[in-house]
Amino acid sequence: MHQHLGAATMAHEPDWLREARSSLEAGLREAVADLEPFSHRAVAYYFGWQDEHGRSSPGPSGRRRLGSLTLLAACLNGGDWHQALPAALACELAFNAAVIHDDIIDHDHTRRGRPTVWTLFGEAAAILAGNALTAVAFDVLATARPAQAAETTGWLARTVVQLNAGQLLDVRFEDRTVVTLPDYLAMVDGKAGAFAECGCALGAVFAGADAETVAGLASFGNRLGLIWQLRNDYLGIWGDPALTGKEPRADLKSRKKTYPVLVALAHGGEERERFADLYRSSPPGLLSDDASHLAADLIEQCGGREATLRETRRLLDEALAPLEHLVPDTTAREALSALATAFALSDR
Amino acid sequence: MHQHLGAATMAHEPDWLREARSSLEAGLREAVADLEPFSHRAVAYYFGWQDEHGRSSPGPSGRRRLGSLTLLAACLNGGDWHQALPAALACELAFNAAVIHDDIIDHDHTRRGRPTVWTLFGEAAAILAGNALTAVAFDVLATARPAQAAETTGWLARTVVQLNAGQLLDVRFEDRTVVTLPDYLAMVDGKAGAFAECGCALGAVFAGADAETVAGLASFGNRLGLIWQLRNDYLGIWGDPALTGKEPRADLKSRKKTYPVLVALAHGGEERERFADLYRSSPPGLLSDDASHLAADLIEQCGGREATLRETRRLLDEALAPLEHLVPDTTAREALSALATAFALSDR
Repeated sequence: MHQHLGAATMAHEPDWLREARSSLEAGLREAVADLEPFSHRAVAYYFGWQDEHGRSSPGPSGRRRLGSLTLLAACLNGGDWHQALPAALACELAFNAAVIHDDIIDHDHTRRGRPTVWTLFGEAAAILAGNALTAVAFDVLATARPAQAAETTGWLARTVVQLNAGQLLDVRFEDRTVVTLPDYLAMVDGKAGAFAECGCALGAVFAGADAETVAGLASFGNRLGLIWQLRNDYLGIWGDPALTGKEPRADLKSRKKTYPVLVALAHGGEERERFADLYRSSPPGLLSDDASHLAADLIEQCGGREATLRETRRLLDEALAPLEHLVPDTTAREALSALATAFALSDR
Repeated sequence: MHQHLGAATMAHEPDWLREARSSLEAGLREAVADLEPFSHRAVAYYFGWQDEHGRSSPGPSGRRRLGSLTLLAACLNGGDWHQALPAALACELAFNAAVIHDDIIDHDHTRRGRPTVWTLFGEAAAILAGNALTAVAFDVLATARPAQAAETTGWLARTVVQLNAGQLLDVRFEDRTVVTLPDYLAMVDGKAGAFAECGCALGAVFAGADAETVAGLASFGNRLGLIWQLRNDYLGIWGDPALTGKEPRADLKSRKKTYPVLVALAHGGEERERFADLYRSSPPGLLSDDASHLAADLIEQCGGREATLRETRRLLDEALAPLEHLVPDTTAREALSALATAFALSDR
């Protein structure tokens, strides 16, 4: 195991991770196989196994980063990823249920270049498919490890509650003109932090880690989730479209209140006023290409770009610091560190 | 306990049931107390503890029949309802989550004479509040009885999957001109049967019943759920508005495909054709008062009324038959029998 872990940046996928990911995919297929046929079609489409007509598709949609993180957490201190497969499945199922619901809530029509579930199958089917996936996640945890079901299902339940709180904060931001950075970080903590935390914790529990290691990895996972979100926020403005697969400055065009935007709005001075006017008062709908260019420049002049990179680095330090005494094995520790760094510096 | 059970028809609520129901209500309040404040407001409104402005309301909305059934199941064979309180809470939480989602799915604007959650708080908040309630249900089960968490959370998870399948079938019926009786009963089995089954099973598990008793009570609960739905279908056409609190022939006015309607459509002859024409081809929107009167008469002439009453009686026999060897205590058995009969003959 350990000779592989050393190479576990997401950029260069090691053999064990490719194998683990393929087991994860097979496990997902099996977990949802008995769903009601119409729900199954919606889910198989969402996961990228089928097209909208139910015909076989080339491959999975999404990178299963959460599941991979869960499996990696299990590998530390001598564990084996196979042990944590049900934990990774449960996290992916519940997390993707939330994504399906999020697309309804945000009225998003496309995800990863394909129509969203609710636009193709209807809102009712999308709500119900999400509910079914979450329930299957609990069933997988309860069935795989009966003796630890209280701990694992309880952890997942509290994570789902947190996630819902984060999603609700996010929705309510849309209606507010003033969103503070602490509000934003509380929302990210619920949405991205809680699930990465749950993945790391359950991975460790399934690999038989002690309570201290579980708590330490949970906290590492939480920071990693925040890093993940801040990096996304960064790429939503300054990412290379060729690598992200998204439109240039997509987040600015849809006037999202992301971390760099909120930093700029919290700034003083003339650039801040120009940016605020541009973001708020231009006609409704998407910002034009030119306007989004200007907005990106103004945000940078207000320090939004630098602050986002700085906060990401700070979170990375915070994530890595406690690993030293938690993960005695230096190879394993380096793998985690490489993963976290890869998240923080990801270009897509 | 037993001296009280004898009087446990829902019509004359015995003292122990009133006390149990008040503990259930207090437990529900406590279980959701830590939800994100906006979600909490939506949930407190839904449960009838607050009005839409967050001001205290006179009392609960809904009769908590599922929770009461769960507590009653725990009382059989010498158990005590206090033991099963977390099971009753979990069932009520998950069931009501589904109701909140169902109102979005069906675009229903009112429930029990009050605006539905999504109409007051928005669709996003209603989706998220439902998700949070379901997650809390799993947390309650996992925390209350760690040693049995695998069994109880697994049971609830599979129930939620079944419920979602039932809800989806129901949605898809709307788009179909032909719905068969077996299709309809499969849908009811998922929607009403699965949850009453789960309530009885979990009540029995929490009271320490053996596997045979759990399975027997689960099957009793399933039949009870079907009875409950068929009785609702009956009352939706022939119920007394003064008792049901609904409009006369409400189900016919909204052209619902309920059991009596499907029996009539499966019938042959001239009345069937007249009814089918009336139900399908009049202008869209609600059926008029006169048209719904005529529809009710035609359904009755096609045997829909008699068939519904007959099927309800058959289900009642099916529910009660296995109780004889399952519940040796005759007083307890009489209580269950009285409850089932009360459901089958309920006027509201």
